[in-house]
Formats: sequence, C-alpha cells, structure tokens
Amino acid sequence: MNPSRQRGLGKAAAGGDDPWKECLEVAVQLALQAGQIIRKALTEEKQVSTKTSAVDLVTETDHLVENLIVSALKEKFPSHRFIAEEATAAGSKCILSDSPTWIIDPVDGTCNFVHRFPTVAVSIGFAVKQELEFGVIYHCIEERLYTGRRGQGSYCNGKRLQVSKVTDITKALILTEIGPKRDPDTLKVFLSNMERLLKAQAHGVRVIGSATLALCHLASGAADAYYQFGLHCWDLAAATVIIREAGGVVIDTSGKKVQKSVKPYWEVVALKMGKEGS
Amino acid sequence: MNPSRQRGLGKAAAGGDDPWKECLEVAVQLALQAGQIIRKALTEEKQVSTKTSAVDLVTETDHLVENLIVSALKEKFPSHRFIAEEATAAGSKCILSDSPTWIIDPVDGTCNFVHRFPTVAVSIGFAVKQELEFGVIYHCIEERLYTGRRGQGSYCNGKRLQVSKVTDITKALILTEIGPKRDPDTLKVFLSNMERLLKAQAHGVRVIGSATLALCHLASGAADAYYQFGLHCWDLAAATVIIREAGGVVIDTSGKKVQKSVKPYWEVVALKMGKEGS
Repeated sequence: MNPSRQRGLGKAAAGGDDPWKECLEVAVQLALQAGQIIRKALTEEKQVSTKTSAVDLVTETDHLVENLIVSALKEKFPSHRFIAEEATAAGSKCILSDSPTWIIDPVDGTCNFVHRFPTVAVSIGFAVKQELEFGVIYHCIEERLYTGRRGQGSYCNGKRLQVSKVTDITKALILTEIGPKRDPDTLKVFLSNMERLLKAQAHGVRVIGSATLALCHLASGAADAYYQFGLHCWDLAAATVIIREAGGVVIDTSGKKVQKSVKPYWEVVALKMGKEGS
Repeated sequence: MNPSRQRGLGKAAAGGDDPWKECLEVAVQLALQAGQIIRKALTEEKQVSTKTSAVDLVTETDHLVENLIVSALKEKFPSHRFIAEEATAAGSKCILSDSPTWIIDPVDGTCNFVHRFPTVAVSIGFAVKQELEFGVIYHCIEERLYTGRRGQGSYCNGKRLQVSKVTDITKALILTEIGPKRDPDTLKVFLSNMERLLKAQAHGVRVIGSATLALCHLASGAADAYYQFGLHCWDLAAATVIIREAGGVVIDTSGKKVQKSVKPYWEVVALKMGKEGS
C-alpha cells in the first residue's frame, strides 16, 4: 500500500496533475491534527456555551480547532476564502464566490462531544468556482478518515466507498438528526417524518448526533438514506463530494441536486437512494 | 498492565477467590471469538429472515454465533443452563432457576448488522441463584470489550467505567431504541415519549440500533439515560451488571430495580440517571 492510500486518500491524491492535490493533502493533515486535539479534549472538563437555542452548544474546542484550521490554511493559501461554522455564528458573512473557498465544521457533533459520546468529526470541504472539489471528514474517535475528490472516487482509510443499492423503503436503514431547534413546528415535522418512515416499515431509523458522520455511513453503504431540515453548508460540503463519489446523490426537497449553490444555509436537504438519476 | 487488564477485565478477573472467575474468562474469550466471526460476516452477503415482524430480522450469523457460544459453554460447564435469543425464538422456554444460567444475545443490533452499520455487539450475561454475577459485551467493530463483575466494578478495555453525574433533563443526552414493533400503539408511545423529551429540552436523543451498546454508553458516562419498552432479558442481562458496577441503576417503569427477576421478557425497562438511590 502506498503512503497516500495508507492515509486514506486512495486514488484521490495519487493523480499527479490534480491542481488541488496539495490543498487536499493539507486538509487531510489538518483534519488529523484537529482530531488529535478533539480526542484529547474529549477526556477533559469543558466550558459549554449556547448559540441559537438552549440545546445548540459550542465549546472552547470548537473555536480552538476552527482557528487552528483556518489560520493554517490562510497562511498556506492567502488568496483563498473561508466559510466556517463558528466564525459564521460570530457574525462573519457566508459568501461563496468563484474563489477557492474552504467550508469548515471544526467539531461536527458538538452535543456528542460535550457528553463524550464517541461520534464526533472534523469536516473540511473545498469549492472552486462554486463547484465542490473535495471533502475530508475525520471521525476523531474511531480514527476513520473519509475523503472524496471530484471525479476520483471516495475512500475511508484507503478503502473505496460505494453507496448501497437499496431503493425499497421496506429494506432501508434511514438516518436523520434532531438538530437544536425545538419549537413546536420543527418538532411536529421531525416526529411526523419519523412516524411516516416507521409506518412504511423502514428497517430502522437511526439518530447518531453527527450529520457528517451519518452522511459518511451513507457513502459507505451502511445506511440507505439520510434526510434533515436546516442543515448548514459546513455540515454538507465535504460529505456531498464523498457521497457523490460513492455513487450517491444529494438533493433538496424539490428533488434538485444540491450542486453549485453552496448557500450558507440550505433550507432543506434530503436524501439519497441508489444512484444519481435513478 | 497485567494481562487480564489488557483484555479489558480490569479488577474483575484479578481476584483469585472469585468462584466465577473461570466463567468470566471463558465468556470474554467466546465474546472475542464471536466478534471475529461477526466482523468477517459483516463484509459478506447475508441470508436475512424475519421473526415477529417484517422488520424483526435474523441472519445465519445470529444462529452460528449463538450455537458456537452455547455449545462451547455446555461442554465446559455441563450443569449450567441457558437462555439465548435465537433458541427462545425457536421455541425454547426461558427458565431462570437457581442454577448458574447464561443469558446470551449472539448479535445485538441485527438490523445494523444486516446493513453493515457498524454498531453491533455480542452480549453474555451470567446469573447464579437469580442474581446477575457478571456481564460481557463486545463491540465487534470498534473492538471495545465491556465487562462488569458484581461488586468489582465495570471496565471497557481495562478502563474503569463510571456513569455520568447528570440528573437534570435539560443537560441530558438520552438514548432509546425503536425496536421491531410497528403497530400504531407502539409507535404512538415511542413518538410521544420522544416528543416529551425534546420538549423538555433534553440536549439530545440518540438511536443507535443496539440496546446493549446504548447501555454501555450509559455505563461509560457518554449518555445520561436510556429507556425502552419491550426489551428482552438477553438485551439487558450483561448490561445491567456493567451499569450497576459503574454506579448506575436499572429500573422498570414502576421505579423498582430490575433485580432478581430475570424474566424472559421485561414489559418495560427504564434507567435512571445518576447514582442508585439518589
């Protein structure tokens, strides 16, 4: 096994003429480094603050890891732009121009992280001319590195990923998230969707508390569909490339592909079943 | 670190005068062996059958692993008795006498296993005079071995476990399962409980598809409470010891401790936060 495969890059980083090869390699290194910090912080006492609601949590580690990633990238690629979760929460505008843009969730699954529930990831996506070029997601606890490079497949620790072939809901394992919104309307939609899936005899519904890792399960074929309302672009950017390169699709509720419009906040993002176009 | 600690037994197996030391060691070896079979089978095509409902699944691996564990134990301990998931499904009676009794779930999280969703465990509990003496749970994919020995603590890969100190629902991460029942009454209870927890501003609710591993998260303090209706004794036997020895409690909905009555089917089981008696 060559070193890039060992680092989980698979074919993605092996191509010599890839203009974003260095960016992808730097993203991988930063994700691993961030993962190490998160793993260590998981065992320590945390200062927890809230954002949009009493259950929308943030910790020092979210800020620390985001600063680490963004400052390292700024130094290396001074002309690039950034959309990152905590900077956005602090008031930075989400602008997706044609410039190379990094879209970062430093700690996906912050509520899990606060509870030491071992499902926490770093997510780094990268878009150029509003097209997602690659995604890197690192499951900090289980040390699983997911990468996807547009046109070159997606990998987990060097193993090629492939979405499942299930298209029948009665054979499907479906993932979703609750999210931090707890107003009556949001809860009603959440619960009625779950009810519909269970009544339709889906094999099961799972809620693991990390959108990006749920999406990685989709890419690996361990689940057949994911849906959620109110995802942010940093939840999705990296995962979108990884899912597409594993043969899956990422669409909004109108059925349109979530493609060039990396909006700061996707109103609705829904699922994949089988292959794109099917 | 001594070898028994390395195998995750911690203090449990270190005591020289423990009458069930050998049984616990055999249980650990069989759980590890079963885990190896399950890990291998996870990558292969599976023959899936159904039991009580269209979503109550069973595979050849469930039967294979159960037979392996039970036949090895019968050979080693011919006077002992057994309660095991697949034998019970096939019509064996669940009898808990005063004899040493093994309570076995060969593959907990069968639906996950069918989908290659990496949350699958082997669970082996052991009761004498209707008192649970030890429990062994092995997370086959992440290779985490949980053990609990009555009066001697519980451990994960040699690290002592301790339940969380959270008793306030607005600070709690709560686990539950959907289970294979999909009749309207069951769904109504499931959804209304989830609604109540979310309205009460619990930090989050997680559904991971394996009762025993959810209970291990409780023991490790990664979650604060678990509740489920319709658990079987093989879902709970091993985990009950592990939780109690980590300072937690296992109770039914009347608030009574689930203690000596290892019934084949517990109508309702719930867990309480914080320490027993608090």
